Amino acid sequence: MKKVVVIKVGGAILENEESLCRLLDDFAALPGNKVLVHGGGRAATRIAADLGIESQMINGRRVTDEKMLDIVTMVYGGLVNKHAVAGLQSRGVNALGLTGADMNVIQGHKRPVKDVDYGWVGDVDCADGHAFKTLLEQGVVPVMAPLIHDGKGHMLNTNADTIASQVACALSEFYDVTLTFCFEKPGVLSDADDDNSVISHITKEKFQQLVADGVISGGMFPKLENAYDAINKGVARVMITRADNLDGSNGTLISE
Amino acid sequence: MKKVVVIKVGGAILENEESLCRLLDDFAALPGNKVLVHGGGRAATRIAADLGIESQMINGRRVTDEKMLDIVTMVYGGLVNKHAVAGLQSRGVNALGLTGADMNVIQGHKRPVKDVDYGWVGDVDCADGHAFKTLLEQGVVPVMAPLIHDGKGHMLNTNADTIASQVACALSEFYDVTLTFCFEKPGVLSDADDDNSVISHITKEKFQQLVADGVISGGMFPKLENAYDAINKGVARVMITRADNLDGSNGTLISE
Repeated sequence: MKKVVVIKVGGAILENEESLCRLLDDFAALPGNKVLVHGGGRAATRIAADLGIESQMINGRRVTDEKMLDIVTMVYGGLVNKHAVAGLQSRGVNALGLTGADMNVIQGHKRPVKDVDYGWVGDVDCADGHAFKTLLEQGVVPVMAPLIHDGKGHMLNTNADTIASQVACALSEFYDVTLTFCFEKPGVLSDADDDNSVISHITKEKFQQLVADGVISGGMFPKLENAYDAINKGVARVMITRADNLDGSNGTLISE
Repeated sequence: MKKVVVIKVGGAILENEESLCRLLDDFAALPGNKVLVHGGGRAATRIAADLGIESQMINGRRVTDEKMLDIVTMVYGGLVNKHAVAGLQSRGVNALGLTGADMNVIQGHKRPVKDVDYGWVGDVDCADGHAFKTLLEQGVVPVMAPLIHDGKGHMLNTNADTIASQVACALSEFYDVTLTFCFEKPGVLSDADDDNSVISHITKEKFQQLVADGVISGGMFPKLENAYDAINKGVARVMITRADNLDGSNGTLISE
């Protein structure tokens, strides 16, 4: 089975010219099929502020009214995406910037209002693995902005981690998929205060043990739950690491 | 020879919800291969103003410093482009938003400084007809923003009419190409004050006669020169019409 790596990086990496260059160099150097998924929340917050619009976050998610939807569409789909695409092209990578609307690669629906009205925030219905496969077979490298569409003419703001997972799961029908999440930390740590305490490999059995021992808690627990969710849906392995370690030589490998 | 129509619409049409809907309906109804090229200058000017940045135009061209490049990249590549793409997807058209950087479809270079320093404005070196052909053969409808890249990691701001011409010329190697420019007027008028005086067909011979007679002058002269430039490079015909006449039943047909 052919391999593909889906790499998610946060907006912070892309906003700093030095870390962006490093990331694009490292990403360009990766052999084989690859997909880049990026965030952009910091840039969106900054440009919204410059436009006199306050960003409202609830549970870490951006409340996306009509005006904020325009901003994230501009910033994620235009500014951050094209900056990355042009940077990759200059490194010989045939990048193609995409939102979910482009070629209908990811369709979803506006999140129903329960306790919170997040506005134009979308939950994914379907990522089109065939469309990604067709592009990869042409040597094209998809660069995904965290935006989807509802099939009714609206763009929707969607979490970049979710996009990365959905793309990885859709591709796992055709490929051996590695899904890599880049965070500030070098991996899952056995001691949260010691960056040298990276746990190199976590299996399902070890995951349960680490939870029982209280080693994994707080913000890392949902990240690992999401990793196992992707693995249960066919992704071969998930890597949690830092953006300066795209080749996976360090970091935490998560598998069955 | 298979046919393709390349349609250029200005930003004003896309900015008004009613005219945008009409345009997308009409464009979706066109049979066969098609490409949409859009502007977005008005939206860029508006958002620049909201950000406290003044738009400077020289000879009708936008001076594009670093900040303005970010704005046009956001507005053309993100806001306007994705709005059109999502709208077309909702009408069953498999649209793909592109800048010149995406799949390297149009590369160029920063315009050399002569009398005027336009900043990050680009002149086209090469549009990749093969890449457009591959997309069209997959049933994909390219939606081009007026942005190219320099192959060195920079986006460049480029006139949408130029983009449309370049795409049409590149496709004329493989297709019978109709290049349609949408303006405010229904076509080339024999009486500038009478919208009912549309000249339905202009040949090269007639063009010279109309110029000699003083019927064609002012802003229409360069438009027709550009049309003949595209025809000389292989485009089968150019249509000058209004956005509410995409099927070409009215307007001015320009041919050899």
